[in-house]
Order: sequence, then structure tokens, then C-alpha cells
Amino acid sequence: METKEVKVMQKILNLNDRIAAELREELAKKNIRFINLMSSPGSGKTTIMEKTAPEFGSKMCVIEGDIQTTLDAERVAKAGIQTYQINTGPFGGDCHLEAGWIKSAMEEIEMENLELIFVENIGNLVCPAEFDVGAHINAVVLSVTEGEDKPLKYPLAFQNSQLCIISKTDLISYLDIDIETIKANIRKVNPKMEVIELSAKTGEGIEQWFEFLKG
Amino acid sequence: METKEVKVMQKILNLNDRIAAELREELAKKNIRFINLMSSPGSGKTTIMEKTAPEFGSKMCVIEGDIQTTLDAERVAKAGIQTYQINTGPFGGDCHLEAGWIKSAMEEIEMENLELIFVENIGNLVCPAEFDVGAHINAVVLSVTEGEDKPLKYPLAFQNSQLCIISKTDLISYLDIDIETIKANIRKVNPKMEVIELSAKTGEGIEQWFEFLKG
Repeated sequence: METKEVKVMQKILNLNDRIAAELREELAKKNIRFINLMSSPGSGKTTIMEKTAPEFGSKMCVIEGDIQTTLDAERVAKAGIQTYQINTGPFGGDCHLEAGWIKSAMEEIEMENLELIFVENIGNLVCPAEFDVGAHINAVVLSVTEGEDKPLKYPLAFQNSQLCIISKTDLISYLDIDIETIKANIRKVNPKMEVIELSAKTGEGIEQWFEFLKG
Repeated sequence: METKEVKVMQKILNLNDRIAAELREELAKKNIRFINLMSSPGSGKTTIMEKTAPEFGSKMCVIEGDIQTTLDAERVAKAGIQTYQINTGPFGGDCHLEAGWIKSAMEEIEMENLELIFVENIGNLVCPAEFDVGAHINAVVLSVTEGEDKPLKYPLAFQNSQLCIISKTDLISYLDIDIETIKANIRKVNPKMEVIELSAKTGEGIEQWFEFLKG
């Protein structure tokens, strides 16, 4: 039975990768950049989207992935941004997003004028990294409160990303944490990773994040 | 193909549940309590184990579940505690622990004098909650830094637990977070949940945690 399961899974992954590749190409043709945000629960992804909204307005939209609730979508919509919620709860509470779901979501989105599409993946530092959703950029958000060792313990999310946002840097002085150690651990698993230190509270790093998105 | 996959998964879950039930019974006969700690990455599970070590010494052991590295096991071993590391990396980086792996780990553990066995599950607030590992108590650890809404967004881990440790309470005054809202959200998804507010840094709640373990 074990072998059979692996074969089925392989088939699902192949289909996912094909849809992901098509999505990536289709959006590139439309000059839309697609950024997939991955992280643990509570790293601050939604807050980063709220802070990004005033800069890009109607040029951006956010697809929210959650198991339950539309809380994040409501927050982002309140910031004046086109938002689409995917809830995986009815489908067994799936722990990640797949390219097919993103494709379906994009069919509902008004694409004209868009320059940026963000996906806020399920809050999970493990499973989302295994599924290509068709993004041009995978970005992993790591809060300083999560500790220095997380890149070493959850390497796939860091290996499969081009950008790491170290978030909640305003809290660093209250923690027994050295940000240089976090950065060294990120580069141990992904030497080419671009890193932005960001605090949504103080505004540190926000301009650098905007520059990255425009670049 | 979809149907076939579901059937295979069902079969795996049934086997897991049977092993879990056997484990639970076997340990109860030996008067050993088995506590399964679940949480997001970086909530402070390992630190709680380090702080629990001086109280229970050779009466406790910890089974560490991680995808990669033996960092957590090394920390707990340093605290003088019998420790066993399960790494899921070689098995596809599995995002949860299963009862069979715990059973294998327990065969390597010196059981005499033990009163408490802890499993530190993979740092993931989603998938571990779907798998019964045979514990007498499931405890979910939620750091105040993760935000007020997490019980609503990740309900299964809270529904399947009997205890919630709200950790890092020393940071609350630096956050726009109300601990009463966190508790209200926990009780919305699990009205019977026992809650301990704990700071490993200041020692708040540690005695209450020890009482819970002795109770």
C-alpha cells in the first residue's frame, strides 16, 4: 500500500507543478509579479500586507490562505485592497495551498491595473514549502520571537525562498536573541537569500521592502 | 485516483489510532503520564522542558520531534534529562509525528523510575493535531507574540488539547495584545480547556505547570 500512496502523491505533485508553471508564465506576460508569503502562524504576514496597502493601492491584491475564518481577508480588505479568501477547512483543513486553488482564485480577481499579487499562505513553516504555487518570488517571514535556530530546523522554507523578512525587530531588545545569528543561520541553509529586517510597528525596513517589490 | 488516495490515508490513520490506543494503555499500567506538546515553531516548548527538568529530574524524559537537527534534544540533554530525538527529515521531512514512531522511540527509553514522558511534537500548529500519538494529555503552547486570533484560525490543535500554555507572557506589555481576548478565543473553540499563563523568563506560572503535571 505504501508504494501506491507514493505514486498517487507523485501524480498530484506533477499536476501541481504543471499548473504552477503555467500560472507563473501567464502572470509574467501580464507584467504582474506574484509573491508567495510563507511563515509560522503569527509572524506578521497580514500586518505586512496592511502596511504595504497604502504604497500600492489598486495595483496590488492579496489572496489569503487560511484553514478557518476570514479574519485576515477582512483586515486586508479594510486597508482598501482587493482580497480573495481561500479556506481549506472544508477540504480536510489542508495545511498548505496548491497551484490549482490559486488558479481558481485568480479567475475571480480583477487583473486590470494589477502589478503585484500576494498569496498569504497557510501559517505553517513546513508544508507550504513543498508546493510550488506558481509565484515568481517565494518570501519567508520569520519573527525574531521565534528564535535563532528556525532556519536550521525548518530548512526547506528557507531553501525554496529568495527573500527572508525578519519581522518584529522592535521586540529584539526584550529577547535573548542575536539578529546576526539569525542571519548567519539563514545563510547557512541559503547563502543567496536576500534579507530585510522589518518592524511594522516602527517602520524599520518598510522602504527597503517597497524597493524590493518595485525592483 | 482521488478516492484511492483517501482510502489509503484512512488505512494509515486507523493503524495510527490503534497503536496510539495501545501505547496509552501500556503507559497507564506503568503509571507513566504521557504529555504531547504541540505548537507553532518558536513558541517555547524546549525552554519549558528545560525549566521542567530541575523539578522532575530522572522521573521525566523527553522525546524530541524535529524535521532537521538535534538542537532541541541537545538542549534538553544538557538539562540532565533522558532524551530521544526523532528526525523526520530522512522520511520526506514529515510535518507531524505518528504513534508508531513514538512506540519505536519508547523501546529505546529506560522506563524504570519514569513518571512523565513528554513528546515535543514538530513545530506546526496544523498537522500534528490530526495524529493521535497515544498521549494521555495533549497540551498546546501558544506564545503571546503569535496574536489573539490563532485559536480561531487553527482550531483543531485547540479542540484536541486539554491544556493550553500561553507562553512568553513577559512580552505582553510590548505587544498590542490583550491576554483576556486570547483566553476568550481559546474557550470559543474549546470551552473546557485548562489554561496556564507562563513565562519561562520570569517564572510566572511555572508552579502551576508543575502542579498540573503532578495532578
